[in-house]
Order: sequence, then structure tokens, then C-alpha cells
Amino acid sequence: MNTFNKQVMHVGEMASGAKLTVPVYRYESSNTEAPAVYIQANMHGAEVQGNAVIFQLLELLKYCKIQGNITLVPYANPVACNHKNGEYTLGRFDPITGVNWNRMYHFNESVIAPFAQQHLDAAEHEIQTNFQQLLLDQIEQKLDHNIWGLTTGQRIAYQLQRMAHQADIVLDLHTGPISSKHLYCPEYAKASANYFDIPHTIFIPNDFDGAMDEATFCPWWSLQQSFKAMGRDFVMGKGAFAKESFTVELGSQEQIDLEVARQDALGILSYLQFKGVIESTEFIPTKMIRYACYLKDYKALYSPMGGMVDFLAEFGKPLPAGEPLARILRMDNYGDGDPLHQVSLDKTVLPILHFASASVNQGTELYKVFCNYFEI
Amino acid sequence: MNTFNKQVMHVGEMASGAKLTVPVYRYESSNTEAPAVYIQANMHGAEVQGNAVIFQLLELLKYCKIQGNITLVPYANPVACNHKNGEYTLGRFDPITGVNWNRMYHFNESVIAPFAQQHLDAAEHEIQTNFQQLLLDQIEQKLDHNIWGLTTGQRIAYQLQRMAHQADIVLDLHTGPISSKHLYCPEYAKASANYFDIPHTIFIPNDFDGAMDEATFCPWWSLQQSFKAMGRDFVMGKGAFAKESFTVELGSQEQIDLEVARQDALGILSYLQFKGVIESTEFIPTKMIRYACYLKDYKALYSPMGGMVDFLAEFGKPLPAGEPLARILRMDNYGDGDPLHQVSLDKTVLPILHFASASVNQGTELYKVFCNYFEI
Amino acid sequence: MNTFNKQVMHVGEMASGAKLTVPVYRYESSNTEAPAVYIQANMHGAEVQGNAVIFQLLELLKYCKIQGNITLVPYANPVACNHKNGEYTLGRFDPITGVNWNRMYHFNESVIAPFAQQHLDAAEHEIQTNFQQLLLDQIEQKLDHNIWGLTTGQRIAYQLQRMAHQADIVLDLHTGPISSKHLYCPEYAKASANYFDIPHTIFIPNDFDGAMDEATFCPWWSLQQSFKAMGRDFVMGKGAFAKESFTVELGSQEQIDLEVARQDALGILSYLQFKGVIESTEFIPTKMIRYACYLKDYKALYSPMGGMVDFLAEFGKPLPAGEPLARILRMDNYGDGDPLHQVSLDKTVLPILHFASASVNQGTELYKVFCNYFEI
Amino acid sequence: MNTFNKQVMHVGEMASGAKLTVPVYRYESSNTEAPAVYIQANMHGAEVQGNAVIFQLLELLKYCKIQGNITLVPYANPVACNHKNGEYTLGRFDPITGVNWNRMYHFNESVIAPFAQQHLDAAEHEIQTNFQQLLLDQIEQKLDHNIWGLTTGQRIAYQLQRMAHQADIVLDLHTGPISSKHLYCPEYAKASANYFDIPHTIFIPNDFDGAMDEATFCPWWSLQQSFKAMGRDFVMGKGAFAKESFTVELGSQEQIDLEVARQDALGILSYLQFKGVIESTEFIPTKMIRYACYLKDYKALYSPMGGMVDFLAEFGKPLPAGEPLARILRMDNYGDGDPLHQVSLDKTVLPILHFASASVNQGTELYKVFCNYFEI
Repeated sequence: MNTFNKQVMHVGEMASGAKLTVPVYRYESSNTEAPAVYIQANMHGAEVQGNAVIFQLLELLKYCKIQGNITLVPYANPVACNHKNGEYTLGRFDPITGVNWNRMYHFNESVIAPFAQQHLDAAEHEIQTNFQQLLLDQIEQKLDHNIWGLTTGQRIAYQLQRMAHQADIVLDLHTGPISSKHLYCPEYAKASANYFDIPHTIFIPNDFDGAMDEATFCPWWSLQQSFKAMGRDFVMGKGAFAKESFTVELGSQEQIDLEVARQDALGILSYLQFKGVIESTEFIPTKMIRYACYLKDYKALYSPMGGMVDFLAEFGKPLPAGEPLARILRMDNYGDGDPLHQVSLDKTVLPILHFASASVNQGTELYKVFCNYFEI
Repeated sequence: MNTFNKQVMHVGEMASGAKLTVPVYRYESSNTEAPAVYIQANMHGAEVQGNAVIFQLLELLKYCKIQGNITLVPYANPVACNHKNGEYTLGRFDPITGVNWNRMYHFNESVIAPFAQQHLDAAEHEIQTNFQQLLLDQIEQKLDHNIWGLTTGQRIAYQLQRMAHQADIVLDLHTGPISSKHLYCPEYAKASANYFDIPHTIFIPNDFDGAMDEATFCPWWSLQQSFKAMGRDFVMGKGAFAKESFTVELGSQEQIDLEVARQDALGILSYLQFKGVIESTEFIPTKMIRYACYLKDYKALYSPMGGMVDFLAEFGKPLPAGEPLARILRMDNYGDGDPLHQVSLDKTVLPILHFASASVNQGTELYKVFCNYFEI
Repeated sequence: MNTFNKQVMHVGEMASGAKLTVPVYRYESSNTEAPAVYIQANMHGAEVQGNAVIFQLLELLKYCKIQGNITLVPYANPVACNHKNGEYTLGRFDPITGVNWNRMYHFNESVIAPFAQQHLDAAEHEIQTNFQQLLLDQIEQKLDHNIWGLTTGQRIAYQLQRMAHQADIVLDLHTGPISSKHLYCPEYAKASANYFDIPHTIFIPNDFDGAMDEATFCPWWSLQQSFKAMGRDFVMGKGAFAKESFTVELGSQEQIDLEVARQDALGILSYLQFKGVIESTEFIPTKMIRYACYLKDYKALYSPMGGMVDFLAEFGKPLPAGEPLARILRMDNYGDGDPLHQVSLDKTVLPILHFASASVNQGTELYKVFCNYFEI
Repeated sequence: MNTFNKQVMHVGEMASGAKLTVPVYRYESSNTEAPAVYIQANMHGAEVQGNAVIFQLLELLKYCKIQGNITLVPYANPVACNHKNGEYTLGRFDPITGVNWNRMYHFNESVIAPFAQQHLDAAEHEIQTNFQQLLLDQIEQKLDHNIWGLTTGQRIAYQLQRMAHQADIVLDLHTGPISSKHLYCPEYAKASANYFDIPHTIFIPNDFDGAMDEATFCPWWSLQQSFKAMGRDFVMGKGAFAKESFTVELGSQEQIDLEVARQDALGILSYLQFKGVIESTEFIPTKMIRYACYLKDYKALYSPMGGMVDFLAEFGKPLPAGEPLARILRMDNYGDGDPLHQVSLDKTVLPILHFASASVNQGTELYKVFCNYFEI
């Protein structure tokens, strides 16, 4: 049975002086060739199912033949996961500033070109080592040498990112509001999407917007492109650039289900087996139709009116043009207006998630759907 | 086809001066013998399904033979039903004061004994008329003659209560957090519980705690008891005292389902047919086992620890002593403590509802269950 | 220099498992004759100035001749004092349930009469010892023997109350929203109100509504009255019944001012010197006019309309009938209505505090004022 | 006496169907040469003082000789200004999404270069007319032709921006949390800063980040630069490019003071007189030292620790290096740590505003200060 070690990381302080801490679990391997893995959960407060998945991973990994170091971090954001407002967890953004907790990671694109220039003739291994060190140094500098200080969320994010930069594979476990399972996958890592037990994948480009997955793959992808512009060609996802980061959306928020978590953990092990992190042949991805679309085709539909919504469209089932996604009830219009408004679209879409509550203002995000989707 | 009239009631103002309005629908009847009915929904912001039930009632009543006046009020609390915090509706209490919106109705017990004394020899019909007028006068006085003003919630509640006091039957449509359907029913109205399509009933005593149902039946019950103490015996639920009020819990909050709402509306029509409000034989209560318990046996279980909860017990299915209600995940304890804690009770219970979120503090209400329940 | 001891009390757990802790400071004395004192601060999250007063008390007490045990508890409610919503601290009520944190203390009046009956002939000292033990036993039972659990707030409140019941003098440090300094004082303890440096006092009767001050003096007052009804006369505030509890309102919430806190601490020492807790003659209450009224005359004025308020009336300065308390701006009425509404009363009042924000709904508490006030 | 017209603009709907409306006041002039002005207030919910300033402006403008059209919009954001959480107004961001209400305006930089190319030889007047129309068309398209809908905030923002684009001068009235008066001024409009009665000015560059001021001057500044790159030189602030937008920070939030508002209104009239919008010589800017710095030197200081803050530094008074800005109280450290932590900086700064509450987490914004400031 494998043993892990456990550490408690101090990531901040509340007004009362209460320490904000995060538990960190590590399975370590002496095999330095296999990829290192970083998995975190619950950066958004209400998105708790990832903690259960980490529980099941920790249980299952006890009996796996582990090749690469694996770091697992549940409860990644202790401010968010304890922030209640009414019965629910107000955890998508800092309650003081409104800033999304998953938009505070760091990437300074201006360091890329000089590094590439400087390493134009360097060995691939050297590039990998030095660039990883550069990324870590940048985080260290943010954490330690800033007389103006850091925001609450940056201090948490940077400490997580420091661990993530030491890995080759990063899985950031999230959930949608009320949602099917889906995966954010960098375009170059398409092949990997078939190893998770997740039927919907969004292929994302090389644009940094502050999220953990982007913060860990964009630097390498930008470096690869910078080298390419200078005439040296590396393949993303191979060799020094064998870096993959995914945001794994495990379903709906505000829920813990340990049985479903076990299935999700098995899907992750199937991917880790594929990447050689664990040596095994037992984890077989579930057979299913896997749909994908490009990020530009992953569209949010904002409610055309205020009202109370009966969400009709099923997730993951193609919805033909003109078929209703939802009916919006407007009792104030009963008797002298239109009390039921049907919402539909003019093209076939694949519904992926919908808003967490039936009550919407005009302009609240109703649904997110795949357009121009395809099987993979 | 019956026609209704519609009015818009002005119940308050926001800081910007925006008017708070509530739509009021009325089917009127010339039959003055049949009971009058008052039905409201959405006093708590997140409990929206009652609006859909009122929609279906309005639709179905078009084709019924209506005997008694029926007043229907969706969106009863416009502050609460528009108050978002994060994605959810923070609508169980005034966001400024924390006071539960359904604890602000009025009942001044001190008027009962003098009224009974004064009407000891009055005709039953006179008692009914005068007492109803007394209740209405008390509300008027609160609304109109108070130099110190009313709270936001009182102003809304009293205007609703004024309508409710004019009815013989009051249905206040609510929901639980994540919940089975259940009914709060005054003990003397037990017979009526069999006519709703609701499998769980809580029989409540004559204690006023500020809720709508209590505010409309407690005065009459207290009057009946006061007369009894003076030697004059009336039967609650009959004659002048034929007053019934129910809180109807329609399932889970934050959800609209128009199909389920139609079923709920049919159950309410079955009850109204039983009471002679509509003349029909078509509405047959669904055959089902109906469980009930007394309010003192409707128990809340508070979480023995902080953690993330996998709710296991099914609603409405007897759970034997020792069987797990829930498992609480505590990843911070993984490796050096107990990461999974099982919650059970030492007696058989009937689970009715559970908390809306998986994340609980030590002391958050986990479940509400029937103890000492019985079939009715 | 006196030394204190410090303990850290564990009062609960958050969803992540984070421990909720409260620091407890104690100056102990071997003199068992002098009264024991319990002082807590910050039960409401935004009411932080009491922590600064406890800081200054701890500093000043180092050099006092302490006669009675003194327990000081800052940050009494770690859930509330860390709960931000937007920039402010949402700390007057549990964010999940809406229940006011200072309405969760325990008092079971039904134990009073049996205790008095049983101790009708007991020595006064025995009465004191046994009754205090009874109060403590009741709390222990609540904390330890409840299979249904306690709410988050009860668990915190009962642990604080356990300490408070061991003291003769209880000071619960609060603040108003935007407020003058004022004191809640039980009617029988009037004499003490002159020793604090606080110009406004509210005399409160023997009614328990769940607050800390009531929870610690009501049991003793009820016992004294019970004995009286049985023919045995004790004087409240003397001998076994020398129990005093105050809610000390230190001014406005959301503010820390260490200089003002030092003045407040000196006022408290003046009172403690008067009660013989510290042996000294150096603490002289500030000369000032002290106004008081009875609780029934401490009136809240609710806003007659929604709008934005220019609060005009000064705290602590008698406001003649008809003079404006406030002007309410209603820009939506500009041009076709009344854009400025003046609020006044029909009697002279003493304004004590007003709402924390300029934006009010119809029915928001605008001001609290003394009516029928008098000098003490 | 001048007369204005008033309209009510419909900007959205809440879940109950309640209309979100905004009042719009207009003083119109037949002089088409004088600049048109647009003034709005209260885009952030707690920042209410601008409404009082608009009240005073409407009063004062009745008696001015008005040359240019003036549009005044109080309560610009009816969602935000009615959103209470606890006693305060949670109005800096959408409570559902966390997005800052003043970061949702529109500017599509990609239209600039083609327009300049197309108008390289056009008359200045034609450029002005056509470019304004282009900006308006872009907003119309956003509002009317988007099958995916708009967010709640975009729908509000774009309707305000449509009015602002029709003006030459835009004043967006805001406040800080607890704050001195200060002004955001585009670098090219420096001269105007001396006409407001505001002692602190931040000069901002041509960077669009979503705010109203930027949304109205950045397009013109970008156009001017685009023309310049193509060899045609216009002067920003003159002729077709006589466009100025300011964010006017009126002091602290959550407060209405009608007297102070009158002073602020007089300062604004002094600026409007300078620009020829009103013909007068009576409005003289108050003599005061006016400090300014560049945006890059307007620095936020984030709290180095959690705690409760005694804010010490006065606004607008240079604070030498090493002098304390604030003291942070940490009672949990009393007795075995450092209970008082002093915060200072290593350079002289001019404190402008501080956080609204004494309670801060590690990383909460404590102060904002001018560095490298200068007199203007």
C-alpha cells in the first residue's frame, strides 16, 4: 500500500486573525521520468464535489503503481468554501471585491520572447528546467517582494500556482451551477479528452484570462510559439512541452456524492494511466459518445426577460432549432399579457448547463450550450 | 368560462422609490354560503413553485363551477423574490434585519377574552361577522395609525393578512430547501389533510409564532377556547369557526416545474371540492400512504460537525434506527483523523427535508424528520 | 505588574473543518469576597470597538490592584466577525438562518419556582451557590446531552454564557450602527449607570428575549421575585443577588479607535472601582449630563417611505417636536412630485442612533430615540 | 426660470417582472455650438451622494443661462441602488456574477483604424458627426441585434452610454469608500481639473477598462491617435475632438448630505461655465492647493495581515515615509505575540481614501494613496 505525506499550507488570515489553511497530500515517486501531477478542488466555494473526488483518488492511489509525483489539494480556497449567504455558498468571487477567485493566477507574457531568444540554441531539457524555474521565480517574486501587498485571492492563487508549476499535468476540479460533466481542454491536448469519463469537451485556445488551467499551459504554449517564430520547432504536448492542464467540471455545485466521485476518480485514473503516471492497464475509459466544440462556439444565452424559469432542455442531448430550452413564467402578466414565454434558438445546440435558480433577472445567464459541436 | 379580475396592490417602496407591487387575482361568486378562499405564494423569495401552482389554478378554475370567492396572490413578497445573492435568492429573511418574512403577521391575543365576554350570548353568525371585523380593524389600525411606522416586512404582511382574514380557507404556498411535499395542518382540521395530494402532514397546535397560517386560525381557535372556558361550546372547523389555514410545502425551493405544478393544483382543487368551494366530483385525491406527526415530533437535526455532506436518506421512507442519514466528508482529517463521519439516530424516523447545500457548519440544520409518526 | 492567563476556547467548526476559536484572558485574584467580572466584545460582527476596549482594559489592569477575578473575551463570535459581504461585515445575524446572534442565550424560567420552593429556608450563601450551579448545569446539559444537536449560534452563545454565569458582573460590549454611546441597564441597577462615562441609559425590565445581559440577570431577578411571592424578601443587587449585567453600546460599528477605546476603558474601570473589583480611588467618572429613559420609551422610527436620507438630528441633543430628524431625497419625484420629504415627530425626543446607510426602504429603521427621558 | 423635461427610461426587469426604471432630466438649448453635457450618478449602489448633487444642479440650473443641452441621470443603476445586504448597499458589482457595474461599457477598438482610413480627407465636422454616429450605431447593434442576449449590467450600461455618446462632456458621479474628494481626468484635459472644487486629481491614459469615462473619451482619443499615425494631426480636447469625460469622486459612500452636495454642484457649474455650457461669470472655483498624480502612481496598499484597523492617516495631507498609515489590532496575539501592528510606507504619499470597514482580511485594500504627486 502506498503512503502519502500530508502538509498544511498557510494561505492567509481573516479579520479575527484566524489562519486560512489548505491541506496538501502528496504521493511521491522515485521515477523522475514520469510526469508529475497536480490536482486541486474547490477554488470556487460551492463547487465541492472535487473534494470527494480527491478523497476517492487518495483511496484508490493507495493500491496503484505510481510512477510520477502526485499532489492533491482539496479545499483549495478556504475563504470561499466557508462563505455562506443564506443557505448557499457564495463562492465564485471574493465577497469584498467581486473578483472571480479563478481569475487571479499570474502570467506575464513579456518574459516569453526574451527567454526564447536566450535559449534559442539550448538543449530541450535545459529549456524545460530553466523555464519552469523562471515561472517559479516569478511567483516567488509576487509572493515575497511586494511592498504594496497582494490581494486576498492573489495570495491564495499564487501559493497554489507555485505547486502547479512544478507539475506537468494540472487538473483543476470545478463544477457548473446545474450542469452536465464537461472538460476544458487546450486544443493541442485533444487526444487526452478521450480518456476522461466526460461526454463534453471544450477546446480552448492560447488566451490567458487568469484561470489556473491557462496559467499553467499558456506560458509553455506561448514559449513554443515564440520559438517557432524564431525558427525552432517544438511540438506542444511532447518532450519539454509535455504540459497539459484541464478544468474538469464534475457536474452540479452544492452537492457531494461519494459514489459518483468514485466514478470520476476512475476516469481520472484512466487518463493518468494513459499519461504513464500510474502503471496499469485496468482503467478503461467508459464507452460513450464524446462531443466537443471550440471555445468560441460555447455560448451563453442571457435571459431575454425577468421571470421564473422552467428549464426544459436536457443536458447532452442535441436540441433542434426552434425547440424550447425553457419556459419563463411571468405571473404579473397573467390576464393582461403573456404569462408564459418560450425560449428557443435558431440552430441546433447541445445544452451543457443552466442557471442554479429558477429566478432570473433580464440578462441573467440562462443556459450554456455547444454550437457547431462534433464527435471526438 | 369563468373570468377573474386582477388588481395590483402597492405594498412598499425601495430606496430608489421603485414601487413594490403584488398582483391579486379574484374569482368571485354570488353564493355567499360557500367558503371564501385565500391562496398566496412566494412569501419567501426562493420558494417559487407556488407561483406556478397559482398559474395552473387560474387556468383550471376557468372551467370549474366556483361557489365561493377565491383570491390568488403570487409573488406575495416582491422584496424577497427579487433579492439575489450570488446565483441564489436570499429570501427567507429581510436582508437588512434578518427577520423571517413569515414571522411578521399580527395576532393580539389580549382582544380574545373581552370579545368572548361581550358576545357570550350573541348569535353565532353575529360572532363570526363581528370577530372577523375585529381582526380586520386590528390590521387597519396597524397599517394606518402608527406614527412610528411599520417595518418593511410588517407593511407587506399586514396587507396580505387583510385579504386572508376575509377568507375562511387560507393556503400559504411554500417550499422546503431540498424537500418532499408536506403540509402544516391545524390539529382540528385533520380530516382535510387527506384531500391534498401530499404524503406528509404536521399537525400543529394553537401557538402563534408569527406565520400566516397561525395568524389566520389561532384567533378563531383562541376565541373558541375562550368561549369554552366561559361555558359556551363551539366546534372548531364548524359553523362560525369553519376556518382552516394550511402551509403547503410544495417540495424544493429555487425550482419551477409547470407539470408538477399542475398536479399540485389538482390536489388543491380536490380539497376545495371537499370544502364546497367548487362544485364538482371530478377531483379525486390520489391514493397514497399519508404519514403525519405532531409538531413536537417534527425534529430538526443540527450537524454535529462542520463538513461537506453526502445526504443519503430518502424522503418519505422510514429510516430504521442506526441507519445512516448522511455521511460528512472532512478532507482536512484525511490521513490523521476521521475523513468520513456517519450520522444516524437512535430511533426510526421519516426524513422530510434536508439542507440546501452540501457545505455545513457545525450546527447547521442537516435534516428535518418525523418521529412518532403514524398513518392517517 | 499583574499577569493574566490566556486560553483559546474552541466554539465550533466551519464547512472546511476550520476551527472557530475565541481567546479568553483572565486576571485572577485570591480575594473571594470581591465580585467576579465577565466582559466580552464583538458578538455582532461589525461591532468591533469592544475589542479595542478590551485591549486597553488588559493594558490598564496590569497596574491596578485587582480584587475580583476578571475574564475578558474579545472576538466572542468568530463566525460573525469574519463574515464579509461587500466591504462591510454582515454580522448581526447568522447568514444562514437570519437569527440575531445576541438572541440565542438560554434561560428556562420554569426552574425558578421549584428552586425557590426548595430553598425557602436556605441560607443566602447556599442559595447563591446552588442557584449559580443550577444555571451552569442547565448550560452543561444543553451543550452535552442533546442528540439533535445545537445551532451554530447556540453552541457559541452557551459557551460564553457558561463563563458569564460564573461572574457577578457582566459587560457585553456592543455598538450601534451610527450611534452615540448608550447603556442598557437593569432597572434595579440604576445607581451604577452614573459610573460609566456614557451619557444615555436605557432602564430595562425583567423580560428575557435571548440577549446576554438578560440571560445573566433575569434568572436572579426572577428568583428574587419568586422568593418574594413566597414571602421571603431579598434586595436585587445586594448579597446573593448582587448581580449586574449591562449591554454597553460604545458608539458606531465598523470602526476601531484606540484613543476613544482608552476613554471607554477608563469609564469601565470607574465602574469596577465603584463595585470593589479594583481597589483604587483614581478612576473618577466624567462629569456630564446623563439622560435615561425606560425601555418602553426607547422608540424606533421606521421610514415612512423609500429614499435616500440626509440624517439631520444630532445625537444626545433634545430635538423639539416638529423639528426635522431627517430629510429624505426622492429624485424619482423631482419635477412631478415631492423630491424632499422632511421627517419629524410630534414630541420632544433625544436622538440616540440612526441607520448605517443613507439608502432606506419604506419601513427601514431610521432613528432610535429616547421619549419621556430624564436626567439621572 | 428654465424648465427641464423628464423621461423615465426602462432598463430591465427583475424576476418578479418588476420594471427597472431610471429618471432622465434634460435642460435643452437651441444653441448648437455649445457643448452638450451628460451627468449620471449612482452607477454603484452605495455611491448615493451624486443623486443629491444632481438635485442641487437641477435647482441651480433653473436660474442659469444655459447654452448647451444638459442631461442628468440620477439612480443610474436601479438594481445596485436597491440591493441591500445587512444594513449596507451591496452595489459595486452584480450580486449574481460579481462583475463591477462600472466595467460593462462598450468600446470596440477595431473600428477605429478603418474609420480613420475612410475619413482621412474628410472635413472635421463630418468626422465628428460620422464618428459619433458610428459609436451610437455600435451601441444600437449591441442593444437590438443579439440573439444570445445581454447581461443585466450591459443592458443598463449600454442605455446610459447611448445618452453619453450624444454629449461632449461626461461626468460620472461616484464616491470612494471612506474618501476625500478626487477626480479621474484624462491626461489631455488637465486644464479642466482646476475648475472643479476637488483637491485631488488622477491623470489617466488612453486605456479602456470598461468604465464610463473611458468608454466615452477613449474612442475619440484612439481616433485622434489613429489619424496621427496616418499623418493627420488633431488636438485632443479641441474642435471635433473636444470631448472630456471625468469620474468625479464626491467623498464617502453610504451618505447623503444636501449642503455638501450644493458645494459640489457649484464646483461643477464652475467647470461648465469654463466650458461655455452656461453663460455666466459668477461661478468661481474655490482657491485650494490641487494635487495630482498619474494613474500608475495612484497605488493601493493591501493589508499585510488580517485584523482590525485604526486608520490614522488623514486624507489630502502628505504623510512622510515611515509615519504610520494605520495600526492593526490583533487581539488573538495579545499576551503571546504582537497585538498592534503599525503600517507605514518607505516614501512620502498623499492618502486619498481608505477601506469602509475596520475589519480586514490579509490582502484587503487598506488605503489608496498618491505617490510622486505634484501641485497643479
